[in-house]
Amino acid sequence: MSLFTRKRSDSVASLGEQSLIATIRQWLGSAAPESPMGMGDDCAQLPPTSKRQLVTVDPVVYGRHFDDSIAPRHVGEKLLKRNLSDIAAMGGQPTAAVIALTLDPRTKLAWLELFYRGLAACARKYEVKIVGGDVAQAENHFSASLTMLGTATSKRVLTRQGAQIGDSLYVTGRLGGSLASGRHYRFKPRLIEGAWLVKQSNVVAMMDLSDGLGKDLRSLTPNGARARLDQNSLPLNKGCDVRAALSDGEDYELLFAVSAQTKHVIFQRKWRQQFPRVPLTRIGELVSADDADEPSLNLECYFGYEHLR
Amino acid sequence: MSLFTRKRSDSVASLGEQSLIATIRQWLGSAAPESPMGMGDDCAQLPPTSKRQLVTVDPVVYGRHFDDSIAPRHVGEKLLKRNLSDIAAMGGQPTAAVIALTLDPRTKLAWLELFYRGLAACARKYEVKIVGGDVAQAENHFSASLTMLGTATSKRVLTRQGAQIGDSLYVTGRLGGSLASGRHYRFKPRLIEGAWLVKQSNVVAMMDLSDGLGKDLRSLTPNGARARLDQNSLPLNKGCDVRAALSDGEDYELLFAVSAQTKHVIFQRKWRQQFPRVPLTRIGELVSADDADEPSLNLECYFGYEHLR
Repeated sequence: MSLFTRKRSDSVASLGEQSLIATIRQWLGSAAPESPMGMGDDCAQLPPTSKRQLVTVDPVVYGRHFDDSIAPRHVGEKLLKRNLSDIAAMGGQPTAAVIALTLDPRTKLAWLELFYRGLAACARKYEVKIVGGDVAQAENHFSASLTMLGTATSKRVLTRQGAQIGDSLYVTGRLGGSLASGRHYRFKPRLIEGAWLVKQSNVVAMMDLSDGLGKDLRSLTPNGARARLDQNSLPLNKGCDVRAALSDGEDYELLFAVSAQTKHVIFQRKWRQQFPRVPLTRIGELVSADDADEPSLNLECYFGYEHLR
Repeated sequence: MSLFTRKRSDSVASLGEQSLIATIRQWLGSAAPESPMGMGDDCAQLPPTSKRQLVTVDPVVYGRHFDDSIAPRHVGEKLLKRNLSDIAAMGGQPTAAVIALTLDPRTKLAWLELFYRGLAACARKYEVKIVGGDVAQAENHFSASLTMLGTATSKRVLTRQGAQIGDSLYVTGRLGGSLASGRHYRFKPRLIEGAWLVKQSNVVAMMDLSDGLGKDLRSLTPNGARARLDQNSLPLNKGCDVRAALSDGEDYELLFAVSAQTKHVIFQRKWRQQFPRVPLTRIGELVSADDADEPSLNLECYFGYEHLR
C-alpha cells in the first residue's frame, strides 16, 4: 500500500491533529491504558519500581527502514520489535513505550490505521503499554520514533562490556538475508532467551545483532583482543554465504560471550532443554590481538551496515 | 546558519554514523554520563526509583519548529525545554532523556555541534542526563525527538483532570507573541513553580500552555462546565492583544485551577513571597455550561494552534 495519497479526504489532514490523536487511541485499543497511566496529559505516569530500569529508542523511517512494498502492519511491528530486541539484549523485560510520529499531511489514514493496529497487536503480545506520544508535521516524510522502557529481570543486567580473552562467542538463530527474506520485520525478539541468559552466570557480555555480526562484534571485543571465528561454524540462513551472515545486518539475534571455564556440552544441553527450537551456535572465541594464529576469517573485510555513508 | 551544506567535508556524511555518535558524545560532555548509565549499549540503565515516574516526548522539526533564522543552540535548548515544560506541568522534576535524530546526510556538522552544545548546556542547568539516542537518515529532513523521564516531587502529581465548577483559573507569566519575540526558544520552563504548586492542596489541576490558552483551556475544563474569562485580566505580553494571548501558542506558561474555597488574597501573597518576579494572574473561573451569564469572552472564536491543518 502506498504511504501518501493525493486525496485529502483519505489523508490524515482530513482529521487534523486533535481528531487524529483520538483516532490513534482507538486504533491502539487496550494497548493504550487510560490516563493517568496513559495518554491524555502532559506526561504519562508510571509506578515506582524496585528494579533497575532500561531505556532505548529506535525509529522507522520511510525510504530507509521500509517502503511501499512492506505491509503497514509489519512496519508497526518492526518499530516495536527493534526496540524489544534492545531490551532482550540486556536480559530485560519491556514495560511501556511512547511514540513520536513525524508525518506528511498526505499520509493515508488507511495506512496509518494498519500501522497502529499492527503495532498494538504486537504490544499486547509482548505486554508493552503504549503510554504516550506526539504527532508533528513534516513535508514528504514519515518517521516514527519509539522510546521503550523496561526493567531488569534479574539482579544483574548484561552489557557489551565484560568479555575477556579466552571467552567463547555464541549466537542464537541463523544469520544473513534478513532484508531479502522479510525477516527484518518477521523476526521474534529474543526476550525469553535474553532473560534466561542473564541468569546464567557464565554468560558475561551480550548484545543484539542489528548492523551485522562483522560490525557488531567489535562492540563486544575488549581492547587487546580480537574475535577468532570459525567460518565453517557460522549458522547461515538459507541462500546466505559468510559475507551475508557478517554484513547484511538486521538479524536481531543475540550475540554473547561465555567465560573460558564453561563446560560447553553442559551449557548447550541446558539451552536445548529450554529452547529446543532455537539454534545456538558457538562461532568462535576471543583471543589476544597479538595471537599469531592465522585467522580463519579476516573480520577487517566485513563492515556491516554503516549509516550515513 | 543554514542547516544543510553542499560541501561533503562540512557535512555529517563526512564522518559516518560511528564517528558521528562518538562526536556527539564529546559535544554533550558531562551531560552524557558514562556507560552503563549512559550511551554505548543496547539500552541505557537507570536506577530503581521509589517515586512515581513521568514520561513525555516532543520533537523539533526543521521547517515547523525552527528554520535557518534560529541559532542552532536555541533549537537544542528549545527541544529540551519543550519537554521540561511538560514535566513542570505535572509538578515533576526531570531525570534523564534520550534523543532520536533523523537527518539528511548534508546536515552541516558545525550546525549540529552548536545544536548539541546548546542542548548540553541546558541539560546541565536543569540537571538532566542525556543517556542515549539514535541516529537515522532521511532525505531533505531534520528532526530530533526527545523523550524525557522525570519523577514526582511530591506524593501527588497534578494532571489536567480534577477541576470543578466554581474553581478559579490562574496563569503564570504573560501570554502571546511567543514566535515573533523569540520567547518560543528563550522561555524558562516553570519547573520550580510547578513543584511548588503541586504542594499547595488547593491547586487541583494543571497543564502547560503550548497551543494557546484558547485551545488548551478545553483540556482543563470538565464536562458540563465552561471557562468564564475576564478579558481585561489576561496578562498580555508587550504588543499583544487578547487574540494573540489566546491563539498564538508556545507560551510554555502554567495554567491551573484552584478550588472554590481558596482565599485568593492569601494564595497570591504566598506566591509573591516565593516568586516575586513571576506574574501570577487569576484570569477567570469555571462555571456551569448552562450558566446564563453573557461571557465576556467567547472562547469558541479562539482556536489556538491546530497541527496538520
